[in-house]
Amino acid sequence: MTVTVLGLGEMGSALAAAFLAGGQRTTVWNRTAGKADALVAEGAVRAGSVAEAVAESDLVVVNVKGNDAVRAILASAGSLDGRVVVNLTDGTSGEARDLAARVSDQGAAYVHGQIMTIAPAIGHADSVVFYGGDSAAYERHREVLSLLGGRGAYLGDDAGTPALFGLAMNDTMWGTLNGFLHAAALLSSEGVEVKRFLEHATASLSGLLGYLPSLAEEVDRGEYAVPFGALKHHLPAVADLVRESRDRGIDDEFPSYTLRLVRAVVEDGHGDDSYSRLVERFRSSPAS
Amino acid sequence: MTVTVLGLGEMGSALAAAFLAGGQRTTVWNRTAGKADALVAEGAVRAGSVAEAVAESDLVVVNVKGNDAVRAILASAGSLDGRVVVNLTDGTSGEARDLAARVSDQGAAYVHGQIMTIAPAIGHADSVVFYGGDSAAYERHREVLSLLGGRGAYLGDDAGTPALFGLAMNDTMWGTLNGFLHAAALLSSEGVEVKRFLEHATASLSGLLGYLPSLAEEVDRGEYAVPFGALKHHLPAVADLVRESRDRGIDDEFPSYTLRLVRAVVEDGHGDDSYSRLVERFRSSPAS
Repeated sequence: MTVTVLGLGEMGSALAAAFLAGGQRTTVWNRTAGKADALVAEGAVRAGSVAEAVAESDLVVVNVKGNDAVRAILASAGSLDGRVVVNLTDGTSGEARDLAARVSDQGAAYVHGQIMTIAPAIGHADSVVFYGGDSAAYERHREVLSLLGGRGAYLGDDAGTPALFGLAMNDTMWGTLNGFLHAAALLSSEGVEVKRFLEHATASLSGLLGYLPSLAEEVDRGEYAVPFGALKHHLPAVADLVRESRDRGIDDEFPSYTLRLVRAVVEDGHGDDSYSRLVERFRSSPAS
Repeated sequence: MTVTVLGLGEMGSALAAAFLAGGQRTTVWNRTAGKADALVAEGAVRAGSVAEAVAESDLVVVNVKGNDAVRAILASAGSLDGRVVVNLTDGTSGEARDLAARVSDQGAAYVHGQIMTIAPAIGHADSVVFYGGDSAAYERHREVLSLLGGRGAYLGDDAGTPALFGLAMNDTMWGTLNGFLHAAALLSSEGVEVKRFLEHATASLSGLLGYLPSLAEEVDRGEYAVPFGALKHHLPAVADLVRESRDRGIDDEFPSYTLRLVRAVVEDGHGDDSYSRLVERFRSSPAS
């Protein structure tokens, strides 16, 4: 089995290294050829052009900075006839679908992959990669792709789904990190070690994750009524957080945003609903 | 042992019920006396006034809507001499300290408690309540207070710390929920069940929680340099999320806020730093 890797940035190099470590004959190409040196020293084959790299393998893996670069690279490949292109480049679901159509027009099968980890974790048993697109092509190369991360998951034949899942996870992640780091600003303004807070907060944080499935169910059903923990009870507590931030001279934009959101939904008459009711607010897309 | 509970809203009633269930003689008072009926039927003693309620017990637990109400109630109590006041009312750390001083002036010991759960979970073995303030008073009543939740934690003699920890946890929680529900809006716009996404995201979400201690350490040390996962790598992915939201007609205020934050920190020359660098931005309190 052979595999071609196009793009040797931090992540692309980790992908190629994982294929090599798994015993695959690996051909590599990068716009700046020097980036291949370390991989070539470990046994990779350097290709002089995209077309040459693509000619080497049935399986062509792409990881570059943005899907505009993917389009340009694949346009320069000449024939992709009979190839399987696995695009692991970050982007939107629309871009993934657009590339699926272009690659199909070039005679190749398209699989989109969304890497859910950082480069040093590529190849680990618990690293997650989401895949979507041509199912036969995915099945044909599933074993080789599993070298990239033990938790590969095929989400269906829509090439856009992996990017959508990745962005949804990132959305949750950035929300969590913004909240946690804003909290860290509050804590450290009092001289409290964030690590100490975290030790005490572990049980509540686990509880928070355990709470997400019930919110998901509320959203999926479109039924938000709850007997306890309704939005009207969140409202004064969010206002406390805004005041605590201001009292301490900490930027209050983030809690003030939450306060506006919650207040608007309560004022719309949904104060007895679950926090999950906010999904409707996000859907409504107010002028921004 | 006897205990007095002032305030019989959803939460106050749960507190009184937990004391009764634990075999404590429990005196209750509420501004609207009728709210005590159910508890009286289960053995609670109804007091006709705050002063009467306070006279009944060494331990006086208060849970009402806001610390302004706590101040008014305690001012109407007459003498608090020799009593221990445990205030479980939500508010800011400054309000807790202010009440500690007032209660001390009235001749009583003050303990502030921050309830980290919803009313139905009061009394459960894994429910968390943070305490701070007079340590001797807390120790004297620790066993009785443990009836409210198995995970009571005394954080120190500063009465403001429990509220600060509670707000820090809420801050993290609202960030997580905002991100998750915004993600839910994206997913459902594609007809994807949020529950299905969550099944696939579980490993990544656990990884996210496992990532917080290293962020905490970076903040505590004030050292943000990281070999991988730096802010400059987050930047294009946040921009993807903004575009994905707009493409789908979903409110983009939340991801746009994150984009502004990350871009500002990268433009300040910190693109090679960890995401934890944002804590400095929150501290800087830009005009808002």
